[in-house]
Amino acid sequence: MPKARESCGLAGVYGPEDAAYRVYLALYSLQHRGQEGAGIVSSDGVRLHGHRHLGLVGEVFGGYDFSALPGRQALGHVRYSTTGSTSNVNTQPLLMEYRNGEIAVAHNGNIVNARALREEYESYGSIFQTTSDSEIIVHLIARPAHAYRRDALAHCLRHLQGAFSLIIMTSEALMGARDPWGFRPLALGKVSEGYVLASETCAFDQLQAEFIREVEPGELVTIDDKGIRSEIYMSPAEVGGTAHCVFEHIYFARPDSVVFGENVHTVRKRLGRKLAEAHPVDGDTVVSVPEGGTSAAIGYSEASGLPYDRGFVANLYVGRTFIRPAQRDRENSADIKINVVKDVVDGKRVVVVDDSIVRGTTLRNRLARLRRCGAREIHLRITCPPHRHPCYYGIDFPTSDELIAHGREEEEIGRMLGVDSIAYLSVEEMLEVMSKDRDGYCTACFSGEYPVIPEGRMDKFVFEQPRYGKTGGNEDA
Amino acid sequence: MPKARESCGLAGVYGPEDAAYRVYLALYSLQHRGQEGAGIVSSDGVRLHGHRHLGLVGEVFGGYDFSALPGRQALGHVRYSTTGSTSNVNTQPLLMEYRNGEIAVAHNGNIVNARALREEYESYGSIFQTTSDSEIIVHLIARPAHAYRRDALAHCLRHLQGAFSLIIMTSEALMGARDPWGFRPLALGKVSEGYVLASETCAFDQLQAEFIREVEPGELVTIDDKGIRSEIYMSPAEVGGTAHCVFEHIYFARPDSVVFGENVHTVRKRLGRKLAEAHPVDGDTVVSVPEGGTSAAIGYSEASGLPYDRGFVANLYVGRTFIRPAQRDRENSADIKINVVKDVVDGKRVVVVDDSIVRGTTLRNRLARLRRCGAREIHLRITCPPHRHPCYYGIDFPTSDELIAHGREEEEIGRMLGVDSIAYLSVEEMLEVMSKDRDGYCTACFSGEYPVIPEGRMDKFVFEQPRYGKTGGNEDA
Amino acid sequence: MPKARESCGLAGVYGPEDAAYRVYLALYSLQHRGQEGAGIVSSDGVRLHGHRHLGLVGEVFGGYDFSALPGRQALGHVRYSTTGSTSNVNTQPLLMEYRNGEIAVAHNGNIVNARALREEYESYGSIFQTTSDSEIIVHLIARPAHAYRRDALAHCLRHLQGAFSLIIMTSEALMGARDPWGFRPLALGKVSEGYVLASETCAFDQLQAEFIREVEPGELVTIDDKGIRSEIYMSPAEVGGTAHCVFEHIYFARPDSVVFGENVHTVRKRLGRKLAEAHPVDGDTVVSVPEGGTSAAIGYSEASGLPYDRGFVANLYVGRTFIRPAQRDRENSADIKINVVKDVVDGKRVVVVDDSIVRGTTLRNRLARLRRCGAREIHLRITCPPHRHPCYYGIDFPTSDELIAHGREEEEIGRMLGVDSIAYLSVEEMLEVMSKDRDGYCTACFSGEYPVIPEGRMDKFVFEQPRYGKTGGNEDA
Amino acid sequence: MPKARESCGLAGVYGPEDAAYRVYLALYSLQHRGQEGAGIVSSDGVRLHGHRHLGLVGEVFGGYDFSALPGRQALGHVRYSTTGSTSNVNTQPLLMEYRNGEIAVAHNGNIVNARALREEYESYGSIFQTTSDSEIIVHLIARPAHAYRRDALAHCLRHLQGAFSLIIMTSEALMGARDPWGFRPLALGKVSEGYVLASETCAFDQLQAEFIREVEPGELVTIDDKGIRSEIYMSPAEVGGTAHCVFEHIYFARPDSVVFGENVHTVRKRLGRKLAEAHPVDGDTVVSVPEGGTSAAIGYSEASGLPYDRGFVANLYVGRTFIRPAQRDRENSADIKINVVKDVVDGKRVVVVDDSIVRGTTLRNRLARLRRCGAREIHLRITCPPHRHPCYYGIDFPTSDELIAHGREEEEIGRMLGVDSIAYLSVEEMLEVMSKDRDGYCTACFSGEYPVIPEGRMDKFVFEQPRYGKTGGNEDA
Repeated sequence: MPKARESCGLAGVYGPEDAAYRVYLALYSLQHRGQEGAGIVSSDGVRLHGHRHLGLVGEVFGGYDFSALPGRQALGHVRYSTTGSTSNVNTQPLLMEYRNGEIAVAHNGNIVNARALREEYESYGSIFQTTSDSEIIVHLIARPAHAYRRDALAHCLRHLQGAFSLIIMTSEALMGARDPWGFRPLALGKVSEGYVLASETCAFDQLQAEFIREVEPGELVTIDDKGIRSEIYMSPAEVGGTAHCVFEHIYFARPDSVVFGENVHTVRKRLGRKLAEAHPVDGDTVVSVPEGGTSAAIGYSEASGLPYDRGFVANLYVGRTFIRPAQRDRENSADIKINVVKDVVDGKRVVVVDDSIVRGTTLRNRLARLRRCGAREIHLRITCPPHRHPCYYGIDFPTSDELIAHGREEEEIGRMLGVDSIAYLSVEEMLEVMSKDRDGYCTACFSGEYPVIPEGRMDKFVFEQPRYGKTGGNEDA
Repeated sequence: MPKARESCGLAGVYGPEDAAYRVYLALYSLQHRGQEGAGIVSSDGVRLHGHRHLGLVGEVFGGYDFSALPGRQALGHVRYSTTGSTSNVNTQPLLMEYRNGEIAVAHNGNIVNARALREEYESYGSIFQTTSDSEIIVHLIARPAHAYRRDALAHCLRHLQGAFSLIIMTSEALMGARDPWGFRPLALGKVSEGYVLASETCAFDQLQAEFIREVEPGELVTIDDKGIRSEIYMSPAEVGGTAHCVFEHIYFARPDSVVFGENVHTVRKRLGRKLAEAHPVDGDTVVSVPEGGTSAAIGYSEASGLPYDRGFVANLYVGRTFIRPAQRDRENSADIKINVVKDVVDGKRVVVVDDSIVRGTTLRNRLARLRRCGAREIHLRITCPPHRHPCYYGIDFPTSDELIAHGREEEEIGRMLGVDSIAYLSVEEMLEVMSKDRDGYCTACFSGEYPVIPEGRMDKFVFEQPRYGKTGGNEDA
Repeated sequence: MPKARESCGLAGVYGPEDAAYRVYLALYSLQHRGQEGAGIVSSDGVRLHGHRHLGLVGEVFGGYDFSALPGRQALGHVRYSTTGSTSNVNTQPLLMEYRNGEIAVAHNGNIVNARALREEYESYGSIFQTTSDSEIIVHLIARPAHAYRRDALAHCLRHLQGAFSLIIMTSEALMGARDPWGFRPLALGKVSEGYVLASETCAFDQLQAEFIREVEPGELVTIDDKGIRSEIYMSPAEVGGTAHCVFEHIYFARPDSVVFGENVHTVRKRLGRKLAEAHPVDGDTVVSVPEGGTSAAIGYSEASGLPYDRGFVANLYVGRTFIRPAQRDRENSADIKINVVKDVVDGKRVVVVDDSIVRGTTLRNRLARLRRCGAREIHLRITCPPHRHPCYYGIDFPTSDELIAHGREEEEIGRMLGVDSIAYLSVEEMLEVMSKDRDGYCTACFSGEYPVIPEGRMDKFVFEQPRYGKTGGNEDA
Repeated sequence: MPKARESCGLAGVYGPEDAAYRVYLALYSLQHRGQEGAGIVSSDGVRLHGHRHLGLVGEVFGGYDFSALPGRQALGHVRYSTTGSTSNVNTQPLLMEYRNGEIAVAHNGNIVNARALREEYESYGSIFQTTSDSEIIVHLIARPAHAYRRDALAHCLRHLQGAFSLIIMTSEALMGARDPWGFRPLALGKVSEGYVLASETCAFDQLQAEFIREVEPGELVTIDDKGIRSEIYMSPAEVGGTAHCVFEHIYFARPDSVVFGENVHTVRKRLGRKLAEAHPVDGDTVVSVPEGGTSAAIGYSEASGLPYDRGFVANLYVGRTFIRPAQRDRENSADIKINVVKDVVDGKRVVVVDDSIVRGTTLRNRLARLRRCGAREIHLRITCPPHRHPCYYGIDFPTSDELIAHGREEEEIGRMLGVDSIAYLSVEEMLEVMSKDRDGYCTACFSGEYPVIPEGRMDKFVFEQPRYGKTGGNEDA
């Protein structure tokens, strides 16, 4: 059970002969952004071809015959569901047909006015086959009022509110777009035969592609046989400024990616340094809770002068393979993934650095093992503020009353976790380490200040009508 | 490879607590009508729940937990694709949402004006997710112009042309309908707690349901908590009379079913008797090619006085399990399913009765084995005329040039098959055995006289745009 | 659940380049003799290569790459376990190594002195890895006292008592042997490139092989590069005459096979004729319970003059795919496989011919359905006597108290089954139809007269010590 | 493709009611010692029960119903094959029956006189079913000359030469033994209800068991209802002293385990410190190649004062799921598992610490990526000497000519890897960091000095005769 779940990862390739295979490699690099399903759609210039299924990228495409996804254009998607339940029918990219031909859409984020739009379109006679908020995008495009405009896609994007990084493909073009707030990342790269789009730049490294720049908030990039074109369909200024998701830097993005203009590992080390400066402690050793806290722990060690060591080691082979037999309780299920190195902590004053605390149950369990292995003192340092509010822009946190910080002050949280001291970075301290756009981040999950107001109550099952696969079988369609 | 493939089998149950489980049992009885995919949707009175996948009924639902399909209403579908390729996304029942709520549709047949309707609806902004002609039915229902009428469904059905036996379900009602030509069967039955609809009555025997009557051509039957209501939305007279598919009696339907008012086994025995009368032969023994010719061979034996015996026996364990290793040719693949009983045919003049000949390749192979086992003479008798024309109403025959009767007279066919004599029933002889509706049958595949003219060229890939699963993997959605 | 289960089917091929593939085709023809596991071992002249697993032939070898089973010699096995539980480790052919090299053994039957031999060999230090009685054969061969004899295998076979048709293969030779009683069949055939051995001749038809003769009781046939040699290692006279299993003719063998010198279908027709003569009835129609009673019903119809018809039809698609969901009782599980053709039996006096009755539960259920469909009278005719005794020679009947005839006379059985009359053939009547060897049959399951006395209590779990796979998972080894 | 492969991991539990489930959890902790197969055998006090299959622990036992493995005793095994090919039949624990009852054996190591013993036993009439050297152990125990001795097992162990850590189980006792050289680890732990044996102490942490001590070289520990007993069946002195495998500390064992009396992470940090002292370099940052070099890199950083940073990050989701589609070359397959953090290395003089170099192909690839990301200098430091000799005691290295150090001096290796400098620890430097037993290690793979001379040529296929599964399918038995 991860702390929180990102909605999706996107990748698109235009130009190379083996476009779909390259998207497959890119999706491997983006697997951390969604482990529930994967799909790829390619275009051979005339028609679109798709394959998608529930499962990890390697499960869905390992051994797959990529000649079934021909053409020099392809886009792919890994997902965890934010809106829409876990079923095959919601697996993306969406692939549909409308008056102007076939269209495929891959979406990362959450559209906060999707419900209103859906109700309007149903009143026109539209039918919906998925429970995902992403389906509304295709309905927008298919409207006769939109379909004949020269700027059809840009016009449609102006109807959407909330978080949406999109890759869209027709038989002839590949397009990338970001919402004007810039909630979710999307980057543009170059390979010798063409262009690449991906949620994170780590995918470019995998493809030996060159990172050009990020797609800008409010920008629509179109790649076709005439080259690459850009238009700003709506500027951040029109929506009151950017709102980059700070949690991408804290937890989600990979340390080797460049996101919102900065390397993630470097930002995390700075967060660790900031923690050491703002919340020093007299300890013997600094350890991290793998994997999330490692970069920050190294930064903490450097700034504090306390030695960094491996207090915890992960079992590299557990992964998703651990299946608790039905008859067993889940109580000690965390134990199997991680172990303490007793020699490192026995008799020591241990500073534990972690990226964030959401529920806190797994962390409490792990800290208790640290104590059992002889840690004399435990000082917990967290690289962000306490989580107290839901995210409406594409991250799936537990409900408020499951959050350990819900209705609790730091001191009480420390007692619950059994530590000798605890300290979080404040919102201000956290943002101070950002070298640019310091005012352009969304911190709603910490502060409750939402850059876009969602319509009504907004949770991930907003559209949920039971559909195929509601019961979760992998076989559902 | 079967001779020809039926589009689908349908079953619906209204009333019993375990409606979905009963539909599952009914689908087993209808498995001969479609082996490519199976699905069930249930209604708990508020919402619809579905499960469907490629595979046999036992593969899709064996071991399935039916508590995931709750409620007293359910409908199910087994399919072979007539329109739309073999992929999960085309597996039925269709389950969609429109203004008035959720709706599920199961369809048997082929709508010949689907293309025109689809183009019209795309021009209004509709998007299509499947490549099946059945999806147009839901779009029709979702039109604002239709959705608010009292007689919405009946009104919509009047827009459709071609073959359609339908079971439709909303959260509150189960409906059965047949096209006014009555191409495909659909029957109504009774269980103590409610009603049952099914393509063939053999499903009623499985459920210990009582057969009430067939749904009439042009009739719409609605079952809900107010009971059962019927309306004739369009009478056969309006379309020039009924056009029951005679091939249901010849080949498709199970011998234990009542179809178009008559027991199939009994009709087949009469066809055999007719053959004996019209095309007698001086033989020693009458044998059938299992399974299709058995009923007719018994009739032939009775009318001719020649003893019926088992010249061929089937390997009961081959079924779908025989998979020829990749490196092998397909040449003798028929051999593994059937063997000759040498003692029965050695030195004998053998009358072989079969239901129909489509390609003739398998039959030629089997007759050659009969000869190798010592059959002195082989006289082939077929219970229908030669197949020379495509079907536009839901049966998937090979293309014309694969038909053995394409451009060949009977004598030449007999030479190709290596028999001493051959005789088919004529259209007239075939219809003479029908005790009612003798003029109300479609014989287009024999005669080329089509009761409804399809728009343009009509084949099963009429809508085919590449979609998920085009490449045929079972995993596709 | 079949009435009773045969132990095994064997096939061996010597000569052709694709020996293993031919064995695979042969095993398809023998699938009725064992559906729990399948295996093939080939020899490339130096080493043996094997593949085996639980499952049907098509499941184990469908899609298998036969280049992994190279060489011009191969033997194969399909099994139901008589001794030894259902687990992968007992799947045959056995493949082991001893002083003289590698050896593979496939066994059909049951060795009644295996326990005594096993205890003796364990006292010498032998270890056993399977729970099958067949493993003792290899231990016998591996004994130093045996391994150096010129007539090693013949010498070993003389130590065995009970039922054993064997195919044995070393890197250089293929051998077939039958016990001197001749309990189980084994036949020798010829292909252009060499020789074939198989449990039943239907496998020869599949391979387009010519049937030469049966391997004789007490004979050992050796095929190697010097040709084919035969020796009688022990004559039937030494053991008091042959004891062919009559149940092979009644129920097990395929109708298209020649077994114990006679075509099975022909024998069954004669059994039906004998029933008509010995137990006539004034009826309207003769029907069989598919598949077993069909040949006999045709014979009954011919001798009685009553018309044969299809009272029952089988659902051809159920096969092994019907899996009752966990929460359901097994009560009406038989229903799904078979249905009554009401038109055939309604208002009629029906003569039902079946091959045998073991438990009678399924039959009772089916006869009740016949009655519900309007059968006015039901007269049951069975082609063998009542089963009252266990088989120690390779057939797995239910335990005595599960047999419907256990402690019941015919009349009482008829009442339990709800029929108007019942008649069995007596042992004498049954044997009268055999054209040869009339005194050479084992009828122990009917008469309790055992040709070889088994040591102590003998059931199929005689050696059973829990082993891998006791719990039945397919994954076990 | 790992650098080298350990033979096996062992775990045994005596006492708790859920012994088999605890063994399952322990095997998860030992998964790094063998990923090809897993098995567990339990004893209910009377009989043994087993389940084993090819695959990871989670694949073999995830969802398994442990009630099929009842009793308070169990032993388990994860394997990579050293002797014997990858097939199910060689999956352990071995489970066999001999005169005294059932016995299960799990073995880690390689018996160097197994061939001679096997030939002797085959001459006595023994047959062998596996191709594993471990099977000889059971044959030894089954010998009449041994089976009746009071000290039967100890007596048998004296016949074996080479590496063998063993857990053996009868219906009533659990035994652990190590060869007198102490090549492979085996530890003894305590839980409230009884005792635990495991290859590494990390398994004890998983079970919340207390580490008591290691089983001593030459010791046999017996646990039964009378408690725990120990005997030294042969002292290290009799064989010329211990020979602990130093590669357990360098590479194989988990950092959180205590092996040969020392914590592995602590030893590795000391190796890193020794490298910094013996082979200093003027660099900017110290990075490790995950996972192996991390502990040593931290030690190097501490001793050198150069900052430790994350130059490489691993893709946590690749694991075993990456399957390269068939049509693709393997060239860049390493890339997908690891990426460089450009910010960390760009323009820097980078010290790269790794545990060992075997083939060097993957490392070369990774160092080239470091260079492409801007590393100005690369200085490679290795915590052991170059590998130049095969291991006969249970580790599977590539053949000599695949070793990068085969016939090459350090300087040349450095050039091949494209580094600015390279340094290995010498055998002496490596052993200096061990706090005890410094003379008691086997360094044969570095030095070529073998503590026990193997008979003839010894490789893992010494017994290999083709057997079931030689062709590698998971289905083989």
